[in-house]
Amino acid sequence: MAPIILDQNEYIKQHVQVKNPYLDTMEEDILYHFSLSTKTHNLPEMFGDIKFVCVGGSANRMKAFAQFMHQELELPGNPEEVRDICEGTDRYCMYKVGPVLSLSHGMGVPSISIMLHELIKLLHHAQSSDVVLIRLGTSGGVGLAPGTVVVTNKAVDYSFRPQFEQVVLGKVITRSTELDEGVANELLQCSAELQSFPTMIGNTMCTHDFYEGQGRLDGALCSFSHEEKLEYLRKAYEAGVRNIEMESTVFAAMCRVCGVKAAVVCVALLNRFDGDQITSPHDVLVEYQQRPQVLVSHFIKKRLGHIV
Amino acid sequence: MAPIILDQNEYIKQHVQVKNPYLDTMEEDILYHFSLSTKTHNLPEMFGDIKFVCVGGSANRMKAFAQFMHQELELPGNPEEVRDICEGTDRYCMYKVGPVLSLSHGMGVPSISIMLHELIKLLHHAQSSDVVLIRLGTSGGVGLAPGTVVVTNKAVDYSFRPQFEQVVLGKVITRSTELDEGVANELLQCSAELQSFPTMIGNTMCTHDFYEGQGRLDGALCSFSHEEKLEYLRKAYEAGVRNIEMESTVFAAMCRVCGVKAAVVCVALLNRFDGDQITSPHDVLVEYQQRPQVLVSHFIKKRLGHIV
Repeated sequence: MAPIILDQNEYIKQHVQVKNPYLDTMEEDILYHFSLSTKTHNLPEMFGDIKFVCVGGSANRMKAFAQFMHQELELPGNPEEVRDICEGTDRYCMYKVGPVLSLSHGMGVPSISIMLHELIKLLHHAQSSDVVLIRLGTSGGVGLAPGTVVVTNKAVDYSFRPQFEQVVLGKVITRSTELDEGVANELLQCSAELQSFPTMIGNTMCTHDFYEGQGRLDGALCSFSHEEKLEYLRKAYEAGVRNIEMESTVFAAMCRVCGVKAAVVCVALLNRFDGDQITSPHDVLVEYQQRPQVLVSHFIKKRLGHIV
Repeated sequence: MAPIILDQNEYIKQHVQVKNPYLDTMEEDILYHFSLSTKTHNLPEMFGDIKFVCVGGSANRMKAFAQFMHQELELPGNPEEVRDICEGTDRYCMYKVGPVLSLSHGMGVPSISIMLHELIKLLHHAQSSDVVLIRLGTSGGVGLAPGTVVVTNKAVDYSFRPQFEQVVLGKVITRSTELDEGVANELLQCSAELQSFPTMIGNTMCTHDFYEGQGRLDGALCSFSHEEKLEYLRKAYEAGVRNIEMESTVFAAMCRVCGVKAAVVCVALLNRFDGDQITSPHDVLVEYQQRPQVLVSHFIKKRLGHIV
């Protein structure tokens, strides 16, 4: 049998893989929640050079990150004037600064899942390659000082299992939620170089709500005791969980299936062993939320050779 | 045993019931995702007169609804100047026009669940009474012409069961998702009076994603055939499902537990038997999205005695 000859560039490049045989037969693909389409937008021209996609829940925070990266990469033009590419909709915000795409995903697994489907299709249509996808988020810490940054080892569910349950046509299927070990270690190395704030690698628990599912005593509904809450958090800690958020399992699962190297970097806004309410002053919380941004910026600049 | 004597007003009024014994022992309650707190805001003064809470996914749409209600209720002042009460955060937007609160909840069960916990606590702290809570949304129709408005009978899960599964400290509990029959019938009556667009009562299926869970063939991932998709939609139709969205089960479940009368009113943007992509022109979609607003405005004006 003759060997398969690959174009050298294609051999090296790692393309984003959609797993849908129907997609390439469609005359037009409307990315409805981005207000973009393959017919009305030249996606390869707009996004073909993307190498880093950074996502986070809050639209304002992801705009601030785009402006920060604009300065850090010393790009021409005014950082204040970054334009929302998804301005035709208010579902998500999207900004492009050089090879970096910064976009918001709202709160919770369903919201980030819609964004990921359309982002992965966008990167596929744009023929982007060698993309790293990083979620920059906020979280509740489990046995950590507030302000600690956690780079996720495994994203785990409410039973501390590294899996994501997806319903497909009424049937539940299970997907693995392992993230890229190399990228996580690179990020930890970046933190060691920065020496600005504590950073660690740990498991991240992903829940489907902020109150009952995370064992908070301050929701509209609460049917358990303070002691039962602490017992659940202790079990989580023993299973390696160091923080709790609401998007990491589906993020890890979809990136893995589509061959995208991915990482989750979240700052802990509080230590859940000490309470449930987020009581730190506004300026302290703002500084905490900048920490994943500073870390990921350093990672991007190193990868681009701006820092040797 | 002596009869329990109730204050007459208390007897008549139906207060919003939080189900959390810890809440009233807290010195301060920070409604973090609203950027409001019992210490920094006078919630009874701000919200005590609320009688109708209208919620929807999109912030822009809920601002437009507030402006529309401002005009419909002929309130003094400029409708353009309605102020976002949650301006300290970009998680949700909230507008108050007379006895109507209009707020956004983002996409998916986790996002609306955070909003509902904080809304129910807000209404509790404000001592609001006799509140009706209505979700105004968009959806995919199942066997309906695009533009049809569906008032939800039962909110059902991916297996067409009228229940919501909530994880509490790692254990799954099940809550009923029945909505208020009286409010649903009143809304249907309003539509008959308006004679502006087709409206029906039907079951609403709530999924945790927009693509695989709803049987779409146009996501980044798709592992089933066109025929398997149609078979699932046919089964849904046979179970009384007339539309599919992403928030109704937790909305119905939480309102029921907290004694709040609630309804879900969604317009179908497409008929899923005919396709997956939302291809209608922008102006047609805008008009469709106004239909639940027109219907709910009529309901509110009737309840307030503006229409006899």
